[in-house]
Amino acid sequence: MKALLLVAHGSRREASNDEVRKLTDCLRRQSGQRFGDVRCAFLELADPSIPDGIEQCIEAGAAEVVVVPYFLSAGRHVVQDIPEQVALKQKQYPDRDIQIVDYLGTAPGLVDTLLGLATAPEGSA
Amino acid sequence: MKALLLVAHGSRREASNDEVRKLTDCLRRQSGQRFGDVRCAFLELADPSIPDGIEQCIEAGAAEVVVVPYFLSAGRHVVQDIPEQVALKQKQYPDRDIQIVDYLGTAPGLVDTLLGLATAPEGSA
Repeated sequence: MKALLLVAHGSRREASNDEVRKLTDCLRRQSGQRFGDVRCAFLELADPSIPDGIEQCIEAGAAEVVVVPYFLSAGRHVVQDIPEQVALKQKQYPDRDIQIVDYLGTAPGLVDTLLGLATAPEGSA
Repeated sequence: MKALLLVAHGSRREASNDEVRKLTDCLRRQSGQRFGDVRCAFLELADPSIPDGIEQCIEAGAAEVVVVPYFLSAGRHVVQDIPEQVALKQKQYPDRDIQIVDYLGTAPGLVDTLLGLATAPEGSA
């Protein structure tokens, strides 16, 4: 079974963490048959941590965990912190395939998503 | 003429700011006839500032400026800081229509964009 783990930064503002959790619910609903388990984890300031999130995926039966960094730029968190935490879990579970895909800021669909916002009939302002 | 102003947080890491500038170039290319001017601005740590970005749009001939917050959650920056800076420019230019649309984290296309990343054949890891 393949799991998707959305990894966000985490915030002291719990409502921001809840936004990530709600987005994860939407991901779960829309993922169809592609992922048998869809969860989120946080680099810091919120639970679960990245190692705990990966652990949960494995406990749920995932042979493969796809880590999706919910980040807009390739700063230290994306380049160093997330890979380090993932590598430790990969070492702990050598028989599972834990891979990190490109972070959100590089997504091919991002431009259309932003243009969609910009041309929506009603904004939030 | 209608302008699109993508507003990012800004970073001490100039490569992150350049990512926003490159994304803005993509937005400009893909916006077609919808926007006569596409630019970016930064809340802090990078240039141009939000007021300067709006000013540039108006100097370019924009009667309408659509501000798109390139943010993932509705923290203080989205709820307070950006609206405050935009309101000051709106007051300065009462004959222009400067509106803020929903921030990226609320975009309907975001779920598909993330699923696209998660199922891409090759990740960056």
